Amino acid sequence: MSLTNASPADAAGAAKSASHILATLSADARNEALTVIHAGLTAARDDILAANARDLELAQQAAADGKLSQSLVSRLDLGRKGKFDDMLQGILDVRDLDDPVGKVTLRTRLDDGLDLERVTCPIGVLLIIFEARPEVIANIAALAVKSGNAAILKGGKESTESFVAIARVISAALDKTKVPNGAIQLVTTRDVIPQLLALDSHIDLVIPRGSNDLVRYIKNNTRIPVLGHADGLCAIYLEQSADPAMAADVIVDSKTHYPAACNSLETLLVQESALTTHLPAVAAALAAKGVELRCDAQSKAALARVPNLSVTDATEADYSTEFLNLTLAVKTVPSLAEAITHINTYGSHHTDCILTSSPEQAEQFMAAVDSSGVYWNASTRFADGTRYGFGTEVGISTNKIHSRGPVGLEGLMIYKYKIRGHGQMAASYGAGEGKKQFLHQRLPLE
Amino acid sequence: MSLTNASPADAAGAAKSASHILATLSADARNEALTVIHAGLTAARDDILAANARDLELAQQAAADGKLSQSLVSRLDLGRKGKFDDMLQGILDVRDLDDPVGKVTLRTRLDDGLDLERVTCPIGVLLIIFEARPEVIANIAALAVKSGNAAILKGGKESTESFVAIARVISAALDKTKVPNGAIQLVTTRDVIPQLLALDSHIDLVIPRGSNDLVRYIKNNTRIPVLGHADGLCAIYLEQSADPAMAADVIVDSKTHYPAACNSLETLLVQESALTTHLPAVAAALAAKGVELRCDAQSKAALARVPNLSVTDATEADYSTEFLNLTLAVKTVPSLAEAITHINTYGSHHTDCILTSSPEQAEQFMAAVDSSGVYWNASTRFADGTRYGFGTEVGISTNKIHSRGPVGLEGLMIYKYKIRGHGQMAASYGAGEGKKQFLHQRLPLE
Repeated sequence: MSLTNASPADAAGAAKSASHILATLSADARNEALTVIHAGLTAARDDILAANARDLELAQQAAADGKLSQSLVSRLDLGRKGKFDDMLQGILDVRDLDDPVGKVTLRTRLDDGLDLERVTCPIGVLLIIFEARPEVIANIAALAVKSGNAAILKGGKESTESFVAIARVISAALDKTKVPNGAIQLVTTRDVIPQLLALDSHIDLVIPRGSNDLVRYIKNNTRIPVLGHADGLCAIYLEQSADPAMAADVIVDSKTHYPAACNSLETLLVQESALTTHLPAVAAALAAKGVELRCDAQSKAALARVPNLSVTDATEADYSTEFLNLTLAVKTVPSLAEAITHINTYGSHHTDCILTSSPEQAEQFMAAVDSSGVYWNASTRFADGTRYGFGTEVGISTNKIHSRGPVGLEGLMIYKYKIRGHGQMAASYGAGEGKKQFLHQRLPLE
Repeated sequence: MSLTNASPADAAGAAKSASHILATLSADARNEALTVIHAGLTAARDDILAANARDLELAQQAAADGKLSQSLVSRLDLGRKGKFDDMLQGILDVRDLDDPVGKVTLRTRLDDGLDLERVTCPIGVLLIIFEARPEVIANIAALAVKSGNAAILKGGKESTESFVAIARVISAALDKTKVPNGAIQLVTTRDVIPQLLALDSHIDLVIPRGSNDLVRYIKNNTRIPVLGHADGLCAIYLEQSADPAMAADVIVDSKTHYPAACNSLETLLVQESALTTHLPAVAAALAAKGVELRCDAQSKAALARVPNLSVTDATEADYSTEFLNLTLAVKTVPSLAEAITHINTYGSHHTDCILTSSPEQAEQFMAAVDSSGVYWNASTRFADGTRYGFGTEVGISTNKIHSRGPVGLEGLMIYKYKIRGHGQMAASYGAGEGKKQFLHQRLPLE
């Protein structure tokens, strides 16, 4: 790893060169590097925590001066119970995942002695831009090495001392392995994000880890593909045939389990015919958890007799708002078609759910809603790489190409086509006398 | 299909709405639409050819005035032998491909009664920008309908009459099918490309079909992902152990089979130790086909005694030039490592080949060269969706994400995650007393 004061262009060039070597290493060589990084970080715990304490002191000062939020200070603290050990365990967890490199996904015999093979390979160079959380550097370095990608890391300035300490250890560790030192680049110089985002000839994918504002800024300022999501405006459609108790459970979980998460509920669409049968109990259950409702006129009227409710009039803007707190927008819709149109128009294509007893309504909803996750009778909070069983999560993508939804290691892979021949020429094939025909025989994937 | 004089934004909005319906149609409904389009175009042959003749007349006039190239006029002509029939057959060929929609690619039991499924689905709205060839409209409309994507088509102005005639037929045909009329939008108004490229909230993927300049312009002027390649700077590395006759065959085919194609050879890298053993015969074979060589000093010296050769001194720029004609840059390299570095530095990541008898050298080359196609002893001209057996070709991509190399229908697909549950809540799972654990049991894909 380079602790670079080099220019962003030099760092990116070095990462590109390293990526070409990294792409040829065996799974054993990559896994061994993760073992060595883990050992290095384990041995250097005291140094790293001392560096983190220096970051923390400055941050607490800044928070006292009102220049930094308390939540950022808390995310910065690597000394909190279990956090350092979790970081270490995460490296071993990534190491022990299936190797994503070199999987053959298509084999075709084009002709005798002319075989086509599609093989997974690393994308190349990742740029990871993240905010203060210092453990992200170890997590991302592990994902990059495991997947055979080089990575350029740019962290928030509040955790610079922690980053540098961790980076020194990773750098020293890589020197004992086959992974080239240049494969992980840490950029600590300030104000270089615009320069990095312009390096589309060397950087193949940007992964922002941080606030919605960070992601939105990055998406709007680069031609490099961005893996992630700016918004998570998830909706649930409550249909009249849903079991009322089940509906209240799922809606409360989706809204209140972790309101600041991108997969939390922000808009509840209620079928008109469920307003009196279902909504009052759901609203009471939400109110018991402290949720404030912003209702359209119809749903507000349906809740007029429910005691102890905090209900205000919804504005049009509420249906486009990711509240990230205990506020929920409620809207009445006549039927499934209008629910689908609302979600496809106002939503962020993240995760949306229908609550119904009707398989037909559920399947229609899941086919027509244009989101990365479409659920039937399950909390939107399940949208998560760990819950999906991916072993790790690179991020959650609302992109329409490459990878969508919770992204595991697969999202850091692309493929190449290999042809192994014996001197065949294209001119030998085609229509006409003496020309050969392609076999196009599908071969087993081994 | 709308023959729209509407604004680009309105056309894109209509396509987006139509895409949500199209995504829910069965394979039968989409295939039936292709049958009806085929029948409509068959019946309207005379009208379409008459419209094409009017385009052609104007184009021939413009060519006579020196305002248009003769090759563009030739590409415009739908009346050329076999061209109309090929266009018609192409629609049926696409119809008869496997349905790419709704393929289940992952199934995981998260818990009893809580199943996760990953299912292929259309990307959404495609923007296809193409130059004069009028048959492209039928080809793209067929690919879009087959893959369940809506499409906005913007063609070159020289073929406007042909486009409008074909579009009228497709529009009338779609009215008899379940595919919404708005699913295929033809934009005939001029100078709207910049406006279309700005509509990233409605358009999910841009596919340019035309010159390198068109592709480069589009890549540089939109945030929407672009599927394609601006350059095809393919290289062959001639290693000392290669069979000399085989080497000459493959190099001549790669260079001369169709020099204007993106998968044609532009740079020949010769191992130093093959300069005298291999290069003279290769050069003579190329010269017999009219190829002009641009050589570095070492390779030029090796060819000093070969008669009737057209050899000039290579400049540095020649190794970054896609000649697209019978010119070939030749460079001497000491060994495999330098060949790989040269290709990864100067190439366009399209298709590159090694000629060798050594499996070790070949595998190392194919692992380390960062291109969509990496070949061993086979012509670069095989890089083509039809030759790969994909049944159709959307384009050739040099992107590092989503799809790479020749792109078939799969490149127009993404996936979504469906969860079918029974009211499960995220809060029920995790560490601690009374919490449930995920099963993460892989299920068969049926």
